Amino acid sequence: MAETPKIRFGFIGCANIARRVSRAVALAPDAVLYAVGSRSLDKARAFAGANGFPAGAKVYGSYEAVLDDPEVDVVYLPLPTSLHVRWAVLAASKKKHILLEKPVALNVAEFDVIIAACESNGVQLMDGTMWMHHPRTSKMKEFLSDVNRFGQLKSIHSNFTFTAGAEFLENDIRVKPDLDALGALGDEGWYCLRAALWAADYELPKTVIALRNPEHNQVGVLLSCGATLYWEDGKVATFYCSFLSNTTMDITAFGTKGTLHVHDYILPYEEDEASFYAATESGVDEAVTKWVPQPSKHITKTDIPQEALMANEFARLVADIKFNNAKPEKKWPTISRKTQLLVDAVKASIDRGFEPVQIQE
Amino acid sequence: MAETPKIRFGFIGCANIARRVSRAVALAPDAVLYAVGSRSLDKARAFAGANGFPAGAKVYGSYEAVLDDPEVDVVYLPLPTSLHVRWAVLAASKKKHILLEKPVALNVAEFDVIIAACESNGVQLMDGTMWMHHPRTSKMKEFLSDVNRFGQLKSIHSNFTFTAGAEFLENDIRVKPDLDALGALGDEGWYCLRAALWAADYELPKTVIALRNPEHNQVGVLLSCGATLYWEDGKVATFYCSFLSNTTMDITAFGTKGTLHVHDYILPYEEDEASFYAATESGVDEAVTKWVPQPSKHITKTDIPQEALMANEFARLVADIKFNNAKPEKKWPTISRKTQLLVDAVKASIDRGFEPVQIQE
Repeated sequence: MAETPKIRFGFIGCANIARRVSRAVALAPDAVLYAVGSRSLDKARAFAGANGFPAGAKVYGSYEAVLDDPEVDVVYLPLPTSLHVRWAVLAASKKKHILLEKPVALNVAEFDVIIAACESNGVQLMDGTMWMHHPRTSKMKEFLSDVNRFGQLKSIHSNFTFTAGAEFLENDIRVKPDLDALGALGDEGWYCLRAALWAADYELPKTVIALRNPEHNQVGVLLSCGATLYWEDGKVATFYCSFLSNTTMDITAFGTKGTLHVHDYILPYEEDEASFYAATESGVDEAVTKWVPQPSKHITKTDIPQEALMANEFARLVADIKFNNAKPEKKWPTISRKTQLLVDAVKASIDRGFEPVQIQE
Repeated sequence: MAETPKIRFGFIGCANIARRVSRAVALAPDAVLYAVGSRSLDKARAFAGANGFPAGAKVYGSYEAVLDDPEVDVVYLPLPTSLHVRWAVLAASKKKHILLEKPVALNVAEFDVIIAACESNGVQLMDGTMWMHHPRTSKMKEFLSDVNRFGQLKSIHSNFTFTAGAEFLENDIRVKPDLDALGALGDEGWYCLRAALWAADYELPKTVIALRNPEHNQVGVLLSCGATLYWEDGKVATFYCSFLSNTTMDITAFGTKGTLHVHDYILPYEEDEASFYAATESGVDEAVTKWVPQPSKHITKTDIPQEALMANEFARLVADIKFNNAKPEKKWPTISRKTQLLVDAVKASIDRGFEPVQIQE
């Protein structure tokens, strides 16, 4: 039986995150680094050389050239958020499947334009939220879904913070209003909101209220913020994200019977193994001297990192479309859109003086 | 040199929590279980027999008899919150030092009556928040206070939940409007609010806003709730407490340079050792494959449990007043009062439809 040909990835742009995704594609068995385009040919060449592109890889001095290469199956799009709609729509029109960095757009209206372009061209769309593809994430979900071990979900707390440093706070695209206008909310809050949705089986909350102490830089870009999210059944989530606090990446999920804790959900402490803590019917001994049982640690080992699993999952979906006439998988753009809806709602609540914002799908 | 005589504790009431505090007093080197009073002499006798009171301990058929015993130095008061003001004021008038269960009162106005009675009678007042006395708590505070390891405090998340069970939800004093009307907020939220204050060096926030999904039982007592707290300098805290979720007792503190995580701050997993996780300037390696450095685990071992350390701290303060003419230590009623102020503010925010409540000291 002939082996299915590898899916060819073309990169448009050489952002920092593209270095990490290059390594991911190189490690993904069903994908291959095929092309990279930059506004500068020299930059593209240097990027390809430094990031494991094979000798025969195509190097282009423009993004358009990547899109026009008929051999490119997938476009990986790490450009600033303000450029997503333009380049994603163009890529879709060239029948390229799109792996899109997050936040997927500046707002859901823009993202809907991207979705429409992908749907009308029959191409797969997925965002670059790597932790969705770690097998630990599935293990955690199994726990949350187990009525005997976790019960009913009551509350979720998530966070993502890191101390960005002076250089980042001065020059990074994520603090520039014309590039990534959503700042910490788009870059970090995206993950927190995804975590809340993920825990809630992607049921949207009804109401979002921003915390009242967002921090902005001098040109009005968010450096830290948070929100509370309310579901119709009474569930509540809180999140906090910041460029101004030391690194945290926690999810705490509160269930009627069980509890989940994870401290490195976005990037595991170690690349080849990741853990979480689960507790069921925690109690104390008769004399109230200790917990019985105590939470248990669950370790998941991986052969290739979560970003390579992401690249491979995308390659698999594309191969299924390309070779088996499968339809694009709607799950991925659907959860991207829900996440963007919540990003928009937090932003709207901040802009409206921390008023409650109702979520309409 | 003669040994300082032990401080004699008299218990009024035989609540469940009194069993644990009996053991604490028995284990505290400077304290002795001296008397117990209940509305039923048989109940008092059975309690004394089952909880390590020495053979000569006094057993009384009323609370008043304990207060009238001139040998009693300290009254431990575990009665329902609605009875605190009455019995604490009476105990103070009899010159008894008071170890008062939390929540200290139904509201701060009541607690102010207790404080005034203690001050005018020159007696020590302290609440029964045990974790304040664990040496781990001091170690965590050292970390939070270290500008090089933790930097400036930006945010705090705390929680306390446990699944109360059918019997508790039906019959426990903590779900009865005439006994502990503050429900989960008074019983559990107390700890969360104390944790936020503790992390913030007892600086009160300016504004408190309750989460919008509190759960009440059929007679209007809170079974779960939460809030966001805002300080003048931009700090924010969130907390969540519930009788309806599996056990959690977390503090996450976000600093500009460091992060603190603790998962069992109220009752350590084990009685003789307790840990927390500290991280400073967490980063990732060049290829973004792992955390460098990872958080470190800090273990504190103890010879006697935190509740015995609490009883002993109280005995030490009382001995200093009794034998050395020291003044009562104001720190303890001051932090009790601040905690009660925040409890009141959360309750007020809930009662006013989740409006912001300004804190006035």
